[in-house]
Amino acid sequence: MIDGDFSKGIAFINGTYVPIEEARIPLLDWGFLRSDANQDTISVWKGVVFRLDDHLARFKRNIARLHMSGEFDEVARRKIVIECVRKTGFRDAYVQIIMTRGVPPAGVRDPRQCANQFYVFCVPYIWVATPEQQRQGLHLFVSGIQRVPSTSVDPTIKHYHWLDFEMGLFEAYDHGAETVVLSDAEGNVTEGPGFNIFAVIDGKLITPGQGVLDGMTRRTVFELCAETNLEYVAAPLPAHRLREAAEVFLSTTAGGLIPITRIDGRPVADGTPGPVTWRLRDLYWKKREAGWHGTPIEYDQVPSS
Amino acid sequence: MIDGDFSKGIAFINGTYVPIEEARIPLLDWGFLRSDANQDTISVWKGVVFRLDDHLARFKRNIARLHMSGEFDEVARRKIVIECVRKTGFRDAYVQIIMTRGVPPAGVRDPRQCANQFYVFCVPYIWVATPEQQRQGLHLFVSGIQRVPSTSVDPTIKHYHWLDFEMGLFEAYDHGAETVVLSDAEGNVTEGPGFNIFAVIDGKLITPGQGVLDGMTRRTVFELCAETNLEYVAAPLPAHRLREAAEVFLSTTAGGLIPITRIDGRPVADGTPGPVTWRLRDLYWKKREAGWHGTPIEYDQVPSS
Repeated sequence: MIDGDFSKGIAFINGTYVPIEEARIPLLDWGFLRSDANQDTISVWKGVVFRLDDHLARFKRNIARLHMSGEFDEVARRKIVIECVRKTGFRDAYVQIIMTRGVPPAGVRDPRQCANQFYVFCVPYIWVATPEQQRQGLHLFVSGIQRVPSTSVDPTIKHYHWLDFEMGLFEAYDHGAETVVLSDAEGNVTEGPGFNIFAVIDGKLITPGQGVLDGMTRRTVFELCAETNLEYVAAPLPAHRLREAAEVFLSTTAGGLIPITRIDGRPVADGTPGPVTWRLRDLYWKKREAGWHGTPIEYDQVPSS
Repeated sequence: MIDGDFSKGIAFINGTYVPIEEARIPLLDWGFLRSDANQDTISVWKGVVFRLDDHLARFKRNIARLHMSGEFDEVARRKIVIECVRKTGFRDAYVQIIMTRGVPPAGVRDPRQCANQFYVFCVPYIWVATPEQQRQGLHLFVSGIQRVPSTSVDPTIKHYHWLDFEMGLFEAYDHGAETVVLSDAEGNVTEGPGFNIFAVIDGKLITPGQGVLDGMTRRTVFELCAETNLEYVAAPLPAHRLREAAEVFLSTTAGGLIPITRIDGRPVADGTPGPVTWRLRDLYWKKREAGWHGTPIEYDQVPSS
């Protein structure tokens, strides 16, 4: 390829497309040194980008909240996302768009003096769970670590403050679980590393309403509920109600809807994925494959498979 | 210089010393994408590194808490810090040592599978306040934004979760202040972007005891108190007591002790730096210049000044 080898992924940095292996950012960017950054992660399936304009709109909302702007406007950002996917030829991919505070002038400690930076990368689709784990369901650990609260950082900003999740993952592994959900100060569950959580209780779907990201797949689940006349509510979800639920699943751009069949070493109901989870999950993929909320990519070549 | 031009600063990345302008890290390093990192910042004054082994010990403690290790052990890390300063020739400098989770193998989402990375950079000494601000004292804004709490992230890890500080700084600027201190859930003050805070109340020094970094300059202030028979206590410090204090100052590696003379638009006492602040500040610099807790650098050349 004239542009370089994008077979493992691509990044857009400082206005240039580079192979993902060569993608580097300045050490002094406050996106790193102060985690002063906002991102959005978009999935591509069978050559179709999912909810591209919704992701771009959320990104635009969030950078405004962080008092950021940048060289590339929303129209340009849209083109760059599409171009990243097109150049890789990936049919199933994962695109992350990022804005960082940037590098301050030497000796300066004022965030207003930084030139905000826009970065994008696109890699092959990443699943939060393996195909086997998706069939069997995941083992979830409910950690007492509290998710960074909304009184500290607006949780609807898709930020990188993940040390709570990372420490929670280590706890989960120590308990034989595969992933983790964190709590709030009142003992309700919040969210996990890159996912929202749902429980089926008394035939209704419940997901935490506060202190969590307004996830794009979470929003999609709400739409699927409306379409299938399944009642749903966004409200506090105490850990004990999660443990006693009929079904539990997570929602994420990195895999859609994934069943949770064990919590803290005990089975959820009979320990197998439940019918509501399967129904919503099937509908999610069927509708996506039919182009729902989709922006098809016009690739240069025909798919290799 | 045979190694390159380090006149603006130097970084140690992947085992190589590079000019600071060229210092870049992988976009996919979870130090950035998950803010999964620990740092320590060390100052050098008149060619002498301050509390080098204390900083290295705290760094070692903190990376262990984050389940990190790396290619370079403490002896190697010590040599690299010294080498960074030596190569720049800087007499007054600021060295940051960093460990990040690193880049996971493609498609992997498990932090245990990352090779942790060690980065260092050294730049000219950065002051949290200009010389004029230091003489007059800073204007501090007390923000209702809560510092990321210890129930979420261990505050004695020197992490990069700074969006709360960054948003607090924008609030401070909007209120005509120069810097900010964040609160806890009970309305006590905690810490600011890169500093601890102290108040002189009834002739005693008080600094928040919980939910803050165990700052190296804070520790140094305690030692200066002990030496001068000034009573001090680390305890909850409600915002209203801070506002009514006889004197207020901040402690930071980026400037030592800096007086605060206005809070939320109102003067602290008579609005000028107080005698306890000046006495401690003078003692701090006198002792540093006398080599206290110091590791002198053996430079190649004589100082240019």
